[in-house]
Amino acid sequence: MSMSNVSRFIARRVELMRSSEIRELLKIVGSRKVISLAGGLPDPQTFPKEELVRICSKVLMERGDSALQYSPTKGVDEFRYELIKFLSNKGVKVSKDDDLIVTTGSQQALHIIALTLIDPKDYVVMELPSYLGAINAFRLSEPNFIGIPLDDDGMNTDILEVRLRRLYAEGKKVKLLYTIPIAHNPAGVTMSLDRRKHLVELAEKYDFLIVEDDPYSSFTYEPTDTTPLKSLSSSGRVIYVSTLSKILSPGFRIGWIVAHNDIVKEFEKCKQSLDLHTPTFTQYLSAEALRTGIVNSVIEKAKAIYKRKKDVMLEALEDYMVPGCWWSRPVGGLFVMLRLPREDMNTSEMLLDAIEAGVAYVPGASFYVDGSGANTMRLNFSYPKEEQIVEGIKILSNVIKSRLQ
Amino acid sequence: MSMSNVSRFIARRVELMRSSEIRELLKIVGSRKVISLAGGLPDPQTFPKEELVRICSKVLMERGDSALQYSPTKGVDEFRYELIKFLSNKGVKVSKDDDLIVTTGSQQALHIIALTLIDPKDYVVMELPSYLGAINAFRLSEPNFIGIPLDDDGMNTDILEVRLRRLYAEGKKVKLLYTIPIAHNPAGVTMSLDRRKHLVELAEKYDFLIVEDDPYSSFTYEPTDTTPLKSLSSSGRVIYVSTLSKILSPGFRIGWIVAHNDIVKEFEKCKQSLDLHTPTFTQYLSAEALRTGIVNSVIEKAKAIYKRKKDVMLEALEDYMVPGCWWSRPVGGLFVMLRLPREDMNTSEMLLDAIEAGVAYVPGASFYVDGSGANTMRLNFSYPKEEQIVEGIKILSNVIKSRLQ
Repeated sequence: MSMSNVSRFIARRVELMRSSEIRELLKIVGSRKVISLAGGLPDPQTFPKEELVRICSKVLMERGDSALQYSPTKGVDEFRYELIKFLSNKGVKVSKDDDLIVTTGSQQALHIIALTLIDPKDYVVMELPSYLGAINAFRLSEPNFIGIPLDDDGMNTDILEVRLRRLYAEGKKVKLLYTIPIAHNPAGVTMSLDRRKHLVELAEKYDFLIVEDDPYSSFTYEPTDTTPLKSLSSSGRVIYVSTLSKILSPGFRIGWIVAHNDIVKEFEKCKQSLDLHTPTFTQYLSAEALRTGIVNSVIEKAKAIYKRKKDVMLEALEDYMVPGCWWSRPVGGLFVMLRLPREDMNTSEMLLDAIEAGVAYVPGASFYVDGSGANTMRLNFSYPKEEQIVEGIKILSNVIKSRLQ
Repeated sequence: MSMSNVSRFIARRVELMRSSEIRELLKIVGSRKVISLAGGLPDPQTFPKEELVRICSKVLMERGDSALQYSPTKGVDEFRYELIKFLSNKGVKVSKDDDLIVTTGSQQALHIIALTLIDPKDYVVMELPSYLGAINAFRLSEPNFIGIPLDDDGMNTDILEVRLRRLYAEGKKVKLLYTIPIAHNPAGVTMSLDRRKHLVELAEKYDFLIVEDDPYSSFTYEPTDTTPLKSLSSSGRVIYVSTLSKILSPGFRIGWIVAHNDIVKEFEKCKQSLDLHTPTFTQYLSAEALRTGIVNSVIEKAKAIYKRKKDVMLEALEDYMVPGCWWSRPVGGLFVMLRLPREDMNTSEMLLDAIEAGVAYVPGASFYVDGSGANTMRLNFSYPKEEQIVEGIKILSNVIKSRLQ
């Protein structure tokens, strides 16, 4: 029998996993001379290379036997200790009922949450727009997504309340809600403190879990109250997810979850089947980078770079973008959202033209679980150089102009 | 509402994930003065710490911007290139229709295979006994397991053929078969070349996939033909899985899969939702360790250490073990299987006594998908020191003796 058609071997659920447009696109862009405003890569200027040389040597010579060996599924104890200290300095409350599990990037945190907490047909609330990696990870468990719109103050919790009331009247129950309250990806907004409190009340009243994803709260560009939902709830129903990807190195793939210890026990059981544990070596390196204050220096350096690049992108949009386009003024994070003048315009269809012209972005549709957002796109300012940002926006403007004619 | 009972939030499939006895046990053992013959840890003597200090420094200073950054889901190209060269030197045929994807340890390879290829109720053939990590990973997809016994020549392919014929007569079809043909964990046997050929023929005839797990073929202690199933099949139905855990560092969590490129495309799509990619940094370090011959030196050194330790364990068993016990004489790998004299003895029940007395092992039942093996156990000789092996076997023998009285 021939293997020319392998589709007969593929499990049904794989059809649910769409190839992420971000990643597919990065592949094309990497091989051409294209300014990429796609992706969400940190600026390599922020990588503390020399400090890491010193740390690698110290860890290998002093603790090599442990740092190169298998380690516990929940994470290396001394790293977990440093993380909890770091979180507490950031104002993230880790209570005595909580526990922390280290994950292989925050993407794995989302996968573990999907496998452990979401059954097929469960109702799962997502923001419109939301993070593509979360949508993809959750989709594997075949939930019913409910989309709730954002505005400048984050997720509109009044609309959420109306939807919850209606669902419950129909005898339906929401299992969990996913949000990026501070410095949202891709929207660039921060949920107001009042709405954060309202959201926590709704979770109590309607008995659902909140997954709070917090990769960007170190990068806020205006005075902002960044109190996490985790600290606003005392009932243990907030599951807090974060990562070192933007504040040390994405190449280490270090993420973590803080949650009620009964839930973390289930996460741990799950993770064991996924990869036994997150690499020991990068956990030891990260512990040392936290302990010696290197992570805090990276944050300071990166925040200054990203604030400047954000201003460069907003100025370039002001100077060159086609009239009628709308764009976000991010108060944090790494992204600007751009909306084209007409509802019938489609940024996915426009993407190949843009790449031909020399600029890449992420089409917005994939960020919306309700199928909307086709005339939006996400622009990244953390990775490209300042002059590339200006040049990229000029090219993009021309591509849009030619579509409008 | 209270969070005192979180079970209402837990997805049904989590019940399928059993806590691995190996890992639970390691937790207890780590906190007491107990000689551990459980686990499967490499001897830290084999870790090339000084060489890695040099490599870390070189990679960070010369390639730091890439080595600390996000990288492709399929793996870092130059690492994939080094791996293919390494495999080809080992006699593993990577054909032009094949592709290689890097995974976060071989555990993730097994998880990806489970998610991508196994639907609920699919028939999946496992050896009796088999690797616990594979059983756990596959169980998540709720297959029907079929167990085929091993003898000194590996999986008995004649028994397999009879089972296949019977299943097909009933209109049932096997989806895939999982095997560790060389230096089996936990059985220590190697499948004879004739049986390897027979197995490949059966896969052709009955149209199933073979997952060939090969973590230990560098550690064979007798002249052995180690031709992998992958090289015996030209139809692309063998999926080859391996890892650097035993030949460089388990703390790097580096595994990989070689398979037909159409299958690898599906694996890649799946992995994207799991953790985006395996840590970039440890891939760069591993590429350099392969390129500069460090992995080959580790193999030579480790093989000599493990052969000696295996002989020490076999001698200690000869000298001290209770009459009536049977144990394997491993031709490769890191483990000895021990069977107690009576069928009604249960090594799981005996485990706490053993730990109290000062020795740990892995009860055998969890290695058998058919519920047998309760009077067997797995003993590891790669990690404990030689004197600990002797002492551990003496203690174990006394524990068994007191059960027999």
